[in-house]
Amino acid sequence: MARYVIGLDFGTNTVRTLIVDVANGKEVATAVWPYRHGKEGVILTRDPHLARQHPADYVTGTEQSIRSALSRARRAVKRFRTADVIGIGVDTTGSTPLPVDASGRPLAFDKRFAKNPAAMAWLWKDHTGVAEAEEITALAQQMRPHYLAKCGGRYSSEWFFSKILHCLRTSAEVFRAAYTWVEIADWIPAMLTGNETPGRFKVGVCAAGHKAMYNDTWGGYPDEEFLGSLDPALVELRRRLAPQAHTIQEIAGRLTPGWAKRTGLPKDIPVAVGAFDAHLGGVGAGIAPGTLVKIIGTSTCDMMVAPAEAEKPLADIPGLCGIVNGSILPGYFGLEAGQSAVGDIFNWFVNYVQPGGARLGSHEALTRAAGKLRPGQSGLLALDWNNGNRTILVDQRLTGLLLGQTLYTTPGEIYRALIESTAFGAMVIINRFEEYGVKVEQVVNCGGIAEKNPLVMQIYADVTGRPMKISRSGQTCALGAAIAAAVVAGSTAGGYDTFAVAQTAMTGLRAKVYKPDPAAHAVYERLYVLYRQLHDCFGTTAWRGNCHNVMKDLLALRAENSH
Amino acid sequence: MARYVIGLDFGTNTVRTLIVDVANGKEVATAVWPYRHGKEGVILTRDPHLARQHPADYVTGTEQSIRSALSRARRAVKRFRTADVIGIGVDTTGSTPLPVDASGRPLAFDKRFAKNPAAMAWLWKDHTGVAEAEEITALAQQMRPHYLAKCGGRYSSEWFFSKILHCLRTSAEVFRAAYTWVEIADWIPAMLTGNETPGRFKVGVCAAGHKAMYNDTWGGYPDEEFLGSLDPALVELRRRLAPQAHTIQEIAGRLTPGWAKRTGLPKDIPVAVGAFDAHLGGVGAGIAPGTLVKIIGTSTCDMMVAPAEAEKPLADIPGLCGIVNGSILPGYFGLEAGQSAVGDIFNWFVNYVQPGGARLGSHEALTRAAGKLRPGQSGLLALDWNNGNRTILVDQRLTGLLLGQTLYTTPGEIYRALIESTAFGAMVIINRFEEYGVKVEQVVNCGGIAEKNPLVMQIYADVTGRPMKISRSGQTCALGAAIAAAVVAGSTAGGYDTFAVAQTAMTGLRAKVYKPDPAAHAVYERLYVLYRQLHDCFGTTAWRGNCHNVMKDLLALRAENSH
Repeated sequence: MARYVIGLDFGTNTVRTLIVDVANGKEVATAVWPYRHGKEGVILTRDPHLARQHPADYVTGTEQSIRSALSRARRAVKRFRTADVIGIGVDTTGSTPLPVDASGRPLAFDKRFAKNPAAMAWLWKDHTGVAEAEEITALAQQMRPHYLAKCGGRYSSEWFFSKILHCLRTSAEVFRAAYTWVEIADWIPAMLTGNETPGRFKVGVCAAGHKAMYNDTWGGYPDEEFLGSLDPALVELRRRLAPQAHTIQEIAGRLTPGWAKRTGLPKDIPVAVGAFDAHLGGVGAGIAPGTLVKIIGTSTCDMMVAPAEAEKPLADIPGLCGIVNGSILPGYFGLEAGQSAVGDIFNWFVNYVQPGGARLGSHEALTRAAGKLRPGQSGLLALDWNNGNRTILVDQRLTGLLLGQTLYTTPGEIYRALIESTAFGAMVIINRFEEYGVKVEQVVNCGGIAEKNPLVMQIYADVTGRPMKISRSGQTCALGAAIAAAVVAGSTAGGYDTFAVAQTAMTGLRAKVYKPDPAAHAVYERLYVLYRQLHDCFGTTAWRGNCHNVMKDLLALRAENSH
Repeated sequence: MARYVIGLDFGTNTVRTLIVDVANGKEVATAVWPYRHGKEGVILTRDPHLARQHPADYVTGTEQSIRSALSRARRAVKRFRTADVIGIGVDTTGSTPLPVDASGRPLAFDKRFAKNPAAMAWLWKDHTGVAEAEEITALAQQMRPHYLAKCGGRYSSEWFFSKILHCLRTSAEVFRAAYTWVEIADWIPAMLTGNETPGRFKVGVCAAGHKAMYNDTWGGYPDEEFLGSLDPALVELRRRLAPQAHTIQEIAGRLTPGWAKRTGLPKDIPVAVGAFDAHLGGVGAGIAPGTLVKIIGTSTCDMMVAPAEAEKPLADIPGLCGIVNGSILPGYFGLEAGQSAVGDIFNWFVNYVQPGGARLGSHEALTRAAGKLRPGQSGLLALDWNNGNRTILVDQRLTGLLLGQTLYTTPGEIYRALIESTAFGAMVIINRFEEYGVKVEQVVNCGGIAEKNPLVMQIYADVTGRPMKISRSGQTCALGAAIAAAVVAGSTAGGYDTFAVAQTAMTGLRAKVYKPDPAAHAVYERLYVLYRQLHDCFGTTAWRGNCHNVMKDLLALRAENSH
């Protein structure tokens, strides 16, 4: 008898329900529900840094997408029965914290705050807390440097405490009304299991460890003295945060009768502790020691795991977004790196610059034009920092750069240079892992760009000199959540007892592998040296020299590769 | 009784005849004849560096445009008589040398070479001699550093000997067939006056001094030892070059009966020694000590004059294209600087990048969008090097750079950044003049962009903090040539005896002056510091440091100037 698990994937614009066959990972049905509030689910204001979500969308979206997916599963699989669903896993964007009252109810559900963006969920890409992030970083450098060593040396404006502190500073009435703040990765499992009340819901170590400086070695969240130095009002908040965070191997609770009724699912099935989409995407892509999983979409998340009980303890790796025990797989350090923009840069070029007149400016046309060029032929070089740099510089206050333009530079050349710049950014990350002893034995890509753009994947293979493999699933985040559901259900219920066994059964790779071309790689090795020169000149204070060689070297490469 | 002079202006795509009233500079008729050979008058091949012209176009164009202009003058001015034309002046592009046989006949008129680009005129923008220019520069640095001190420290691929040496190296049959090489600025007056035979035609000091290292202080052209070290075959050529160069105050000869018949002009009227379009454009814009004349088109030429007999002799000014006694006005050093691309950069963005989709990508639409922005608001900064840098770096092997892009950067913002980059480039030139004691008391602009683009002129005023004045004439090059004609005709024939008197009578400024806005200038002063940092980091080997501040400073300026 088949058993099924559900992965719930809360993205930036939609919530997705994926129903998976436990035996083989087959994705039997999926349903996507677009958020209703704001612009495609994102509340925007005149402040370009602001991005919020209304939590009502999470509630309605959960119900609607599960019902719709179940209905599709029944149509797709003759013998499908909802009673055969044995568990639920949840992944969400993050850090996306939400202010809640003492009962765990989002403040946005209170009439007083219904239209106040500060009372909504502060979406991952909300950058209103830039100043607060700098303040937290500066204080930690002085008081608690070890906090920073686990999150790349800098606390980001995208993260938990930057957002809360910014709320305190700019929307004090909301801050005062909030009993505590919860990542939606924790709040949604709490909602499904009736454990919203602060003190009852389980906090996932993925969100806490990567975004809120939680670490068991120093007693969990940052201490009261540190938070109190930022603002005395944070001391009280600190006391209300959970003492202990949990891995996705643990059960957040069991589905309430109410939610069972709303969705049609069996009550009491286990719901796994929530985690971020990217990290569960890593699980769904088959992450294991030596495997770098790259989720490539508008931005990237680059993940690896390293055994937590290794004889040689893992060094802190400067510039990584986070090194957190158990954040991806229990028993392993989860190592998270990423690029602040990849697809977003290509989208910027197509949607904002709108090159190529009326005809030649689509992604498809630009990809065709870019695909006709050889490495080095354009004479162009770009920095992929239009949205800052997440790894290894951890600096939002960086911007894009393009150089090498002549009077004849074409949109196809620029498009290729932008693709290449993201590949060089990817290379910096691979090198950083290996510089600190985390060997990259294979690279598994997933996400829209990995699946749909062979040119990008080939350039990544040629730049890195490594084969680019593609995850079999096109929905690795939701699949990873489903795998967590299978593990919390356990073998007695028809699931699995370990992630290793579950991943072996439920994940896989596509047959197509992008292999590096040695000649192209040789050219890209020289371009990478120039990229790294610009990277260090514009991105670090330690670099000393000039860039007099850069344009000349590019012209020489262009001449060599033009005929 | 009115007297008239003719200015003949040989441009990149056309020849223009301008008929001017000597008394007041009134332009009574003009006629433009587009060259017939190649693409808009330029012979191109698969080599993107190659740009040639067929000299047959000069011959036909002279006849056709003069006849057409005279016919228009007769229609425009009731009492106009061709007998009242008292002289001809000639300006041309340059360095545009032409190989000729022992009778002064262009080799391109010989059937053997009719279709050989090497036998044609090597147009100013032909860059095939890049390697030879480097060779000449290297040899001069070693053997004759004083040669370089007068032409900015580097010999350009656009100049006389680079082209001849490249011909010798790559088209030896043409080089061997040539008796000598003549700038078209010299060959056209020679043609009109029947003085084509080498040894008889007068060489202008403008072309010789700025492009062929001619200087009276070292005995004219570079010596035989130097040229022979480049290639022994150049020794013979050196012996055939003129011993003495001349200013535009001198008569190249008198119009032959043949040309009088072909054109309808009186025979025996004087033809002035020829000079480059830009330099005579300076004359037509009213150049005098303290006045910087900027001719702004696809590229710029920035000219000043300084008294040649001043008590304090003029220092060599590093990075200027040339410092030549008498090259603009007799009795003054002509100082030439320039930007390799200005309008060409805007044209590249519109014609090659084709931004803004189908609707918003015209110069007009982009200018409107750019005009709505405040200085600093875009967060962008560009280097105006898409075609290299003529002053002060004298380096063709530089390329464009744009930085500060976010995920929301628009074409209007980029367009404005490109305009600003050319204004910063203009500022570098003004500063260089003043750093070496040549005070810039006023700036007079001419050329298409100066006349037609108020946004560009306002940005130039705001960046430089100086009023931008505009020359009254829209055809200053041809007007300058006509002024030279009036001076060689002399007062006895109804002309003038000095350029000062002729310029006072025949040139003027428009009423509209673009005045700098102090607030905008204050922002641009800060942006200029960043421009200069990038300029020196990418353009020089001496600079030491990093550019870690650049993107952050731009973001700060953006924040300050966004509300």
